[in-house]
Amino acid sequence: MVINCVAYQNGRKLGDIDVQAISDYVVRPDCFVWVALLDPDDEELASMAREFGLHELAVEDARKGHQRPKIEEYGASMFAVLHTVDIDPVNPDGDLIVGQVAVFVGPNYVLSVRRKSPLGFQDVRARAEAEPENLARGSGFVLYAIMDAVVDRYFPVLAKLETDLERLETEIFRGVPSPASIEAFYDLKYRLMTLKHAVASLMEAVAKLFGGRVPAVCLGSQEYFRDVFDHLARINAAIDGQREMLQTGISVTLALVGLADSQVTKRLAAYGALITVPTLVAGIYGMNFEHMPELKWVGGYPLTLASMVIIDVVLFIRFRANGWL
Amino acid sequence: MVINCVAYQNGRKLGDIDVQAISDYVVRPDCFVWVALLDPDDEELASMAREFGLHELAVEDARKGHQRPKIEEYGASMFAVLHTVDIDPVNPDGDLIVGQVAVFVGPNYVLSVRRKSPLGFQDVRARAEAEPENLARGSGFVLYAIMDAVVDRYFPVLAKLETDLERLETEIFRGVPSPASIEAFYDLKYRLMTLKHAVASLMEAVAKLFGGRVPAVCLGSQEYFRDVFDHLARINAAIDGQREMLQTGISVTLALVGLADSQVTKRLAAYGALITVPTLVAGIYGMNFEHMPELKWVGGYPLTLASMVIIDVVLFIRFRANGWL
Amino acid sequence: MVINCVAYQNGRKLGDIDVQAISDYVVRPDCFVWVALLDPDDEELASMAREFGLHELAVEDARKGHQRPKIEEYGASMFAVLHTVDIDPVNPDGDLIVGQVAVFVGPNYVLSVRRKSPLGFQDVRARAEAEPENLARGSGFVLYAIMDAVVDRYFPVLAKLETDLERLETEIFRGVPSPASIEAFYDLKYRLMTLKHAVASLMEAVAKLFGGRVPAVCLGSQEYFRDVFDHLARINAAIDGQREMLQTGISVTLALVGLADSQVTKRLAAYGALITVPTLVAGIYGMNFEHMPELKWVGGYPLTLASMVIIDVVLFIRFRANGWL
Amino acid sequence: MVINCVAYQNGRKLGDIDVQAISDYVVRPDCFVWVALLDPDDEELASMAREFGLHELAVEDARKGHQRPKIEEYGASMFAVLHTVDIDPVNPDGDLIVGQVAVFVGPNYVLSVRRKSPLGFQDVRARAEAEPENLARGSGFVLYAIMDAVVDRYFPVLAKLETDLERLETEIFRGVPSPASIEAFYDLKYRLMTLKHAVASLMEAVAKLFGGRVPAVCLGSQEYFRDVFDHLARINAAIDGQREMLQTGISVTLALVGLADSQVTKRLAAYGALITVPTLVAGIYGMNFEHMPELKWVGGYPLTLASMVIIDVVLFIRFRANGWL
Amino acid sequence: MVINCVAYQNGRKLGDIDVQAISDYVVRPDCFVWVALLDPDDEELASMAREFGLHELAVEDARKGHQRPKIEEYGASMFAVLHTVDIDPVNPDGDLIVGQVAVFVGPNYVLSVRRKSPLGFQDVRARAEAEPENLARGSGFVLYAIMDAVVDRYFPVLAKLETDLERLETEIFRGVPSPASIEAFYDLKYRLMTLKHAVASLMEAVAKLFGGRVPAVCLGSQEYFRDVFDHLARINAAIDGQREMLQTGISVTLALVGLADSQVTKRLAAYGALITVPTLVAGIYGMNFEHMPELKWVGGYPLTLASMVIIDVVLFIRFRANGWL
Repeated sequence: MVINCVAYQNGRKLGDIDVQAISDYVVRPDCFVWVALLDPDDEELASMAREFGLHELAVEDARKGHQRPKIEEYGASMFAVLHTVDIDPVNPDGDLIVGQVAVFVGPNYVLSVRRKSPLGFQDVRARAEAEPENLARGSGFVLYAIMDAVVDRYFPVLAKLETDLERLETEIFRGVPSPASIEAFYDLKYRLMTLKHAVASLMEAVAKLFGGRVPAVCLGSQEYFRDVFDHLARINAAIDGQREMLQTGISVTLALVGLADSQVTKRLAAYGALITVPTLVAGIYGMNFEHMPELKWVGGYPLTLASMVIIDVVLFIRFRANGWL
Repeated sequence: MVINCVAYQNGRKLGDIDVQAISDYVVRPDCFVWVALLDPDDEELASMAREFGLHELAVEDARKGHQRPKIEEYGASMFAVLHTVDIDPVNPDGDLIVGQVAVFVGPNYVLSVRRKSPLGFQDVRARAEAEPENLARGSGFVLYAIMDAVVDRYFPVLAKLETDLERLETEIFRGVPSPASIEAFYDLKYRLMTLKHAVASLMEAVAKLFGGRVPAVCLGSQEYFRDVFDHLARINAAIDGQREMLQTGISVTLALVGLADSQVTKRLAAYGALITVPTLVAGIYGMNFEHMPELKWVGGYPLTLASMVIIDVVLFIRFRANGWL
Repeated sequence: MVINCVAYQNGRKLGDIDVQAISDYVVRPDCFVWVALLDPDDEELASMAREFGLHELAVEDARKGHQRPKIEEYGASMFAVLHTVDIDPVNPDGDLIVGQVAVFVGPNYVLSVRRKSPLGFQDVRARAEAEPENLARGSGFVLYAIMDAVVDRYFPVLAKLETDLERLETEIFRGVPSPASIEAFYDLKYRLMTLKHAVASLMEAVAKLFGGRVPAVCLGSQEYFRDVFDHLARINAAIDGQREMLQTGISVTLALVGLADSQVTKRLAAYGALITVPTLVAGIYGMNFEHMPELKWVGGYPLTLASMVIIDVVLFIRFRANGWL
Repeated sequence: MVINCVAYQNGRKLGDIDVQAISDYVVRPDCFVWVALLDPDDEELASMAREFGLHELAVEDARKGHQRPKIEEYGASMFAVLHTVDIDPVNPDGDLIVGQVAVFVGPNYVLSVRRKSPLGFQDVRARAEAEPENLARGSGFVLYAIMDAVVDRYFPVLAKLETDLERLETEIFRGVPSPASIEAFYDLKYRLMTLKHAVASLMEAVAKLFGGRVPAVCLGSQEYFRDVFDHLARINAAIDGQREMLQTGISVTLALVGLADSQVTKRLAAYGALITVPTLVAGIYGMNFEHMPELKWVGGYPLTLASMVIIDVVLFIRFRANGWL
Repeated sequence: MVINCVAYQNGRKLGDIDVQAISDYVVRPDCFVWVALLDPDDEELASMAREFGLHELAVEDARKGHQRPKIEEYGASMFAVLHTVDIDPVNPDGDLIVGQVAVFVGPNYVLSVRRKSPLGFQDVRARAEAEPENLARGSGFVLYAIMDAVVDRYFPVLAKLETDLERLETEIFRGVPSPASIEAFYDLKYRLMTLKHAVASLMEAVAKLFGGRVPAVCLGSQEYFRDVFDHLARINAAIDGQREMLQTGISVTLALVGLADSQVTKRLAAYGALITVPTLVAGIYGMNFEHMPELKWVGGYPLTLASMVIIDVVLFIRFRANGWL
């Protein structure tokens, strides 16, 4: 589905144009066309490929989805695949929603193909149109603007994962750790790796858009791509930090869950000892010897009961002091 | 065994030719011969080596099998070793079946030598012949086509391993983890490493077929090799992600299996406590003191029984509340 | 808030100047202006950006805070982000206080923007002014001086973390390890990673200021930046060493905490055995057989008691010898 | 001890020559001398050093042994240190036997110095002499031939370690894991690291003998050194795979050994419960209350015994169903 | 304190000279001065700095100590920091003694500054003077000689740590592992990391003194620095190997210590079972039913005792067979 198809000249919007008219504008100098597609069918993609002369491998990647984030050069044009990562609004603790944005960038065109991504790029277009001096840098700046928007959406996801990690850490140290905590850590790790996957590959790819040999369409926007790279590096470092704490958190939780059980066993063993001692005393006075003088004493029974209680009180106090109870 | 021996000119099939006629076609410009061998004996290989002038070390590698995936240049020609990895149709959860495809590529020939690989490359040949404009790129494109076919077969294997991992994860968190789960994780790790071995070495090798200095026979197909690299990188990243989850999964399972036992021990200790307390009471009234007034009471026995029950009910409720039972 | 605004010529202070007069001094050769801002509002920053012609992306980074440490070139000028890391004076064992210093350096100016950082750079300025021959190296030397001051403040933080680690290690081997030790290790790891984050990124960035291609403003101060790099490398190595010991410390503590419980359980089981044996003896003489000759013996009762004591003494000695008690 | 001292011209053997005659042959063009020493004393080495003009540092290394595998250039000549790794025929599961082969290679000579290595290079010499066209490549080919022989001997060692690992894995999952299994894993790890040490350093060194700038004496044998590198890379990858499985194997064994004990404890606790319940019943009917109607029933005793049996049968069935027994 | 101050020409000792005369010799061609300081005060260092024109940053590093090992170029001169690592003769199992040697090397001088290092370099000087042909290579060779002496002293330290590790390993598998073993492993790890720290940084630094672009003063001694590098690489590899075994050793010890306790608990539980069964039998015959025919049998009592013994013997044999006792 074609969302937008707009022609720009020297950074200023010329107006919405018809898809069939694209070829008229693409040939004009200082002019570029920016087309946005959403979940296009094969027919739409094929017609765009003809219109812009896209490479078959890139079109194949845009058609299939499930690519890893990457940026490739095909002669003078470029092909970028980005992952949008969003929290599921229905189930915020469930799996992250991963969408894909494929962007074809040539000297005179930008074509974005969005799949499964809940949010559009109308804001990006609006903001870009509001800064014609930047848009005049050409189609490379549009690639930056889209990339920047995608990367900015990683930050709330990262913040959510950080909050989740902190909550789990509080749980294991303050509350009672349980196998459910382990599963929560495990799920968090999955989500973290989903984000990491989107970030790390893209970071690696963006590093080629500034500094050394830079593709021609990106030449005027190098410092902007370095800024995107910097954001990605920041997220990546935060993810790695979280991942390490998470790993330690899992180890600690596993140990503490086991510990909670073994502590109960220890306490039950200690309580058990408090029962067995008077049981032994009772056993002794239950023996059937004919000559057991205590059995005839009037105070024998209450004295025995009292001694049982006293022994247990003494034991209880000592167990407490030793931290056994 | 010679499966196919076909000559091509400018990307179009000239026809099946006799093995003895190979040398006639190899010398023609714009022409190349594509020979496919299956489990050849030493004699067949030696005759091919003479026909195409193959290097003795490469022939030795193709003869012996058990090589690691690699791509080597011998002057103007190349030698590639690929691993085919397939799920055993008889025992889908057993070890993966690893075969080997050795490909010799010269400016005018392609020779593929398949060993232990269940699936042939007839489809690859058919598809390549259907795109004469691509086949006209020369023998390098055939190498790409074979490699692409091999790599595409990794995806279902990867998907199977992913499904297995998810099943195991569900088992450990939903069901009862057992030492059998540990062994299943362990076996999965072996299979994952088999795939990783095929993928990682090949990825490293393919990286030299695009971008920088590229062997002459691959020059026209650089973007295709980058596409193969991209697929390999995707699989490789997925394997690494799985491997990390698998490692965590093993740790968690080991801990949970131990936990399951220690929880039973804890519960048995708690039930034990429920038995020892009335045993003590019974012991007390089993003592043989002459002066134990309760023994003479008419209601002494039922009262004692009742108190036993009441004590245990109270303990049971408290143990439940503490999560000890 | 503007803290200082001073003009220097050939390394000597010309005097405090008015913010509006900056542009007069910036154009003079051999002259540079050094401005220090503390928590500036957007208006102040924007006016500085106009005055010095700063790049919008760098200004945006200085405005927002929460950047990772980095050094970027924008044409002939540079932009550095440093993290100040300080121990919280109120809660020395709590989270480290991380502030940010952004420094814009051009051939004729230095602008430092400090945020959330408890300590100022008056000392840095005083010391720099006391060495006019060094200040004459230009604005790059001021960047070095600020960086050196920031990095020097990492050392006491590192020393505090080292002391904390040693204290925890003594605790686990000398005292009784407890879940609280685990949490202390965990918190220490967080603080260590905070410091690591500040150090590692900066180290990577500083490595570009000496040796190979060096930005023009830093040319005269290369050996000084190498010195800063060396300090950072030293801290970084120390952090990595600590991190490894800390990881081992967590594993050891987890194991020892579990061990402490299982040792108590073992001892209780051993004491339990000392009770059950005489209980069995008492049970035997509590049987109601008519023909039990011992029951009629006058010394039967004391002999039985004595045998109980003897059995337990023997067992106790053996348990001790085996290390069971 | 001088094992062989042979002169070659254009790849063909001229004949065994006297050690004193070496200098006559070394100066002839297209001629080289190949000397093999076994455990030479200092005097022999010193005389060879004079004869061939060897560098003092290299001679020192050849004299002392205990070097790590390496390849060094000294002007136009080279010095290689290789480790031979063999299974101890007396104690195949004991430590691996590590010997050292030092090889000095100049344009006109090859000097091999073997120490503690059980196997000689007569085969290597015989095979090399059988292929004069290869030997005509010069002294570099001899270095390859020796290296190839050393590396080929790593394969059976690797195979032995693989078999040992598989046997241990079978033991831990099929049989009963014991602390002895842990020690076996531990010993295996040592042996694996011994092999790794020999392989990894050599692989790194061999990588410089093909591809980029290659020492002059190796120029004609580049493809052969690449082949050796490939073998080393294969062994290295196999070792790394084994090492990872071994690490997991140790973790799993440690957990399973602990598990075996805690399962016995669990079962004993469950059997204990089956004893304590009838003990309580017996205790109740051992009480001395005057008014316990059951005691007078004729069938009281058999009924009580029956109820004890029934209770235990019911408990036994439930424990079994729960997996507690 | 000035230990030595000697002038050399063309590798031959001219004689001890006065500190004030240094400047006379430094200007002579083919001549260099070698000064050795031990724990100098600031005044001595400052005077040397003036005499040789040393860079302030290098002097600062030599003054303060606590630097990491490094080699830096300052124009035509060099500055090296080495760590001496020695076993404490008073407490050989205690922390390693780390000293520092700072060496300033210019075309015409060598100045070594030793701090906290128990051993001097008189031997180094004596050996160097005995080889005038080597000393004639210039001041770079002196740097090599000092470095070689420092690195040679690492070997006995490494050997001590290896012996300690082997002893600990024997202890955990042969003897009874205890928490003290864990602490011993932990301390060993600290010492290993101290050595690693000295070695790894120096190795990295020495790698720049041969092969590629080499500082002028080291040009004639490249092969010697490669030899030092090789020694460092060997130690480094040995340390990494030990570190890995040590890590595994800690894990194994932690598990075995826990295991030792849980095995005792298991055995106590098994012995407990041997007591509870006859206790039940005794309880049964302690019941007060009027109609218990066995109680009247003359042989009832001995038969019961015999059955108790028989049951326990049977159980004992079965427990033994199961490995429960």
